[in-house]
Amino acid sequence: MGRVTVRRKVLRVRDGVTSHAPDALAGEEPMEIRVNGRPVTVTMRTPGHDFDLAVGFLVSEGVVHSREDVAAVRYCAGATEDGSNTYNVVDVQLAPGVPEPETSLERNFYTTSSCGLCGKASLDAVRTRSRWSVASDPTRLSTDLLLSLPDRLREAQRVFDRTGGLHAAGLFTAAGDLLGLCEDVGRHNAVDKVIGGAALNDQLPARGTMLMVSGRASFELVQKAVMAGIPALAAVSAPSSLAADLAEESGMTLVGFLRGSSMNVYAGADRLL
Amino acid sequence: MGRVTVRRKVLRVRDGVTSHAPDALAGEEPMEIRVNGRPVTVTMRTPGHDFDLAVGFLVSEGVVHSREDVAAVRYCAGATEDGSNTYNVVDVQLAPGVPEPETSLERNFYTTSSCGLCGKASLDAVRTRSRWSVASDPTRLSTDLLLSLPDRLREAQRVFDRTGGLHAAGLFTAAGDLLGLCEDVGRHNAVDKVIGGAALNDQLPARGTMLMVSGRASFELVQKAVMAGIPALAAVSAPSSLAADLAEESGMTLVGFLRGSSMNVYAGADRLL
Repeated sequence: MGRVTVRRKVLRVRDGVTSHAPDALAGEEPMEIRVNGRPVTVTMRTPGHDFDLAVGFLVSEGVVHSREDVAAVRYCAGATEDGSNTYNVVDVQLAPGVPEPETSLERNFYTTSSCGLCGKASLDAVRTRSRWSVASDPTRLSTDLLLSLPDRLREAQRVFDRTGGLHAAGLFTAAGDLLGLCEDVGRHNAVDKVIGGAALNDQLPARGTMLMVSGRASFELVQKAVMAGIPALAAVSAPSSLAADLAEESGMTLVGFLRGSSMNVYAGADRLL
Repeated sequence: MGRVTVRRKVLRVRDGVTSHAPDALAGEEPMEIRVNGRPVTVTMRTPGHDFDLAVGFLVSEGVVHSREDVAAVRYCAGATEDGSNTYNVVDVQLAPGVPEPETSLERNFYTTSSCGLCGKASLDAVRTRSRWSVASDPTRLSTDLLLSLPDRLREAQRVFDRTGGLHAAGLFTAAGDLLGLCEDVGRHNAVDKVIGGAALNDQLPARGTMLMVSGRASFELVQKAVMAGIPALAAVSAPSSLAADLAEESGMTLVGFLRGSSMNVYAGADRLL
């Protein structure tokens, strides 16, 4: 995965002194996701775990629910005029009987909600589309274990120390075992990669797990966790209002500002020990 | 703008001690952008500066180039079943003679590039669509002034201290005057809001300016700056590889890791004094 980081010469300015030095930047390239050969979306991502990203995106959008829904994943050749493979186009073949998405999936989630884009409609849409019940997951979570997650995520982030530019998402069991860790220039992509990896490992619904993210918790990250059946989401930084609303209505535990010896619990506090 | 922050009761855990307290979360709601009445995209955004966001998005996508291209901007009534206004649907009426976008604008930028999604095609697409030449902007930038921008951005961020969850983007003149500052749960939205505000103030192309962002510099942020004619982008955190490529090919100055008394210059160092 040489494209995860790209070396580049930069001009450093430190206390008025300038110098030229090589620097490692986080790789970023567009990737098109196709379903049964038909393009459905393009995302700017850090190359690596591309199949996980494609499958995880389809889980988040409610097209794929588990490994059985996926017949094959492959890079498309011939994506350029000269027929060479850029490794930037991934096709997911659905298993027989799995319905194809009707239209472009880009934000389809919201635009198909018949009500006029109030937050309530978005919450309803997520509840309607999710196959798994997060609220019924009886998992209990140790506060001490939660407090240890940011350090564990950082330790596992080999790339992070080199670029400083990657978001991370890690999926842990309630006992603290790391099931998967992915990084990306995009927060959503990092989560989609982790969820897709779990899907391809036949681990969905991801009952009894916690998803830890390096940045903020937006509505869309909570939505992705709901679609994957993950009962707890923890973030180093703040959640948004709609993220907290969706977590509460879904019965998900949502933790924010998880730093040092402190955290804020925005929803599902009854799951904490 | 009561919806910029939303108060919510949270459970705080501090060194093993728990307490209930109110917390202010960054507001997040979906917003649909329409052009001449036709929906083109939906974005999850922090309410506020919605007209700027709509116009800025269209500048970034090459539909609108300056204030003259916009005839009117308004909230759509009747977006819900009962006909009430959610203030989450914004319609931009284009001036006579301004071509409507042919399809959904969501990522249209990339999907319409005929080559197969290599980074090169993305760079070419931006260059082709931009009306302004950033490379020809003779602006020179003071290193000391650049180093002062993060503090100035923070000072101007009234909301930030309350939620900890908002990205900020500020547009400054080369002399250091603040032209506009916007915040959002989404990095792209914060930049679109600032650019849209500049467009509606008849300040595009934004020659002689610097755009300062609170987080990382992705390809799409550089793209947005190019489309608005902004010759310099500075970020508190790291740029991606494709962001640096596009800045260099466009003749834009790209500064990253702008913190304390240091910074890294990834492109356009000749513009620095």
